[in-house]
Amino acid sequence: MVEVIKVGGSLAEDSVNLITLCQELGALAKSHKMLIVPGGGKFADVVREFYRNFDLPDTVAHKMAILSMDQFALFLSSITPNSQTTYVLEEARGLSSTGILPIILPSNLMFQKDHLEHSWDVTSDSITAYIAGLLLAKKLILVTDVDGIFTEDPKKDLDARMIEKLSVNELLDWNKRTSVDKFLPRILLKTRVDCYVVNGKHPERIKAILKGEKTICTRIIF
Amino acid sequence: MVEVIKVGGSLAEDSVNLITLCQELGALAKSHKMLIVPGGGKFADVVREFYRNFDLPDTVAHKMAILSMDQFALFLSSITPNSQTTYVLEEARGLSSTGILPIILPSNLMFQKDHLEHSWDVTSDSITAYIAGLLLAKKLILVTDVDGIFTEDPKKDLDARMIEKLSVNELLDWNKRTSVDKFLPRILLKTRVDCYVVNGKHPERIKAILKGEKTICTRIIF
Repeated sequence: MVEVIKVGGSLAEDSVNLITLCQELGALAKSHKMLIVPGGGKFADVVREFYRNFDLPDTVAHKMAILSMDQFALFLSSITPNSQTTYVLEEARGLSSTGILPIILPSNLMFQKDHLEHSWDVTSDSITAYIAGLLLAKKLILVTDVDGIFTEDPKKDLDARMIEKLSVNELLDWNKRTSVDKFLPRILLKTRVDCYVVNGKHPERIKAILKGEKTICTRIIF
Repeated sequence: MVEVIKVGGSLAEDSVNLITLCQELGALAKSHKMLIVPGGGKFADVVREFYRNFDLPDTVAHKMAILSMDQFALFLSSITPNSQTTYVLEEARGLSSTGILPIILPSNLMFQKDHLEHSWDVTSDSITAYIAGLLLAKKLILVTDVDGIFTEDPKKDLDARMIEKLSVNELLDWNKRTSVDKFLPRILLKTRVDCYVVNGKHPERIKAILKGEKTICTRIIF
């Protein structure tokens, strides 16, 4: 059973913390079967800019954004010891069994069998959940630059309160922007994988989730 | 015989002009066998930023930058009538014979048989020249946002003078930044394809080059 971890693009804003996180993930892969799906980060931000400036079709922007994930994957691999990029999920499963940390290049998979909606509601969160579903993963860990899902945007509102547990249905009805994309709860309802949203600036929290221990994060429950 | 045209990423800074250019190119493909190789533009700029911030290996940055060209290709195709993206040069040649404008996605080709140096001296100019060589193209047209190669940077120096003809050896010995990448003359020496640097804000100049007529541009000669 492999655990699927998304490393969010926003973490690249702080290079020291991201390098530390990647070193920890590379080490954790020796004792936990896990794989990384990359975010899109700044690479995807440029796609959004072109989408707006040139009024691009959603399907084209979606493909361009998936290439941003490939770029982020290549980048992550170069700063993550004990890692290897792959286009193929079965190869990733094999690598994780030998203690190597696979980093997925999602383009081939998503260009060939993408059953997801092509819109900005589907970003790397939903794509990671989709991959977790294909792999029948037990845990899906979305690593971001905030502690979890908040009642309000924690970067703007001091009164924002982190939510420890949130049901998929509550997330479906959520009408505010959160740290995860809008489509995620719809995929989780199908794949029924346990999902955690956690802060990558504290790698020990990821370790705790992998071990099934209590830590600071948001758990999305059914 | 197919003509190879690179559409530079900097042209996306002016959306109206770029859309006009792409419409003209789509129309020209009906009477000229030609294909497009994309630049990297803002997508490649983000790669440069990561390269600096994370001290990435050249080989990794090179691959990430080639994915930027795929992104720009998808983008160009969505604003170019009568165009089709392809990973395969032979397919591109076939499309161009039927009057369709192929836009190359260079990643597969470059990841598989890349004999070029992996450094920032090799950008989409050199990659386009390499592809022109593989296709035994007669003309290589580098479309950029300035009139050609200048004695000084025309965006900074009012005394900058455009050079109508420049030999490959002069370009090899050139020690200033120009509108083309540093590796280009080395590839041109091998492929011996006629190379033109031209301003994409004046599509009629590209048409003149395709027809063998005199126009404002820099021609690189042997």
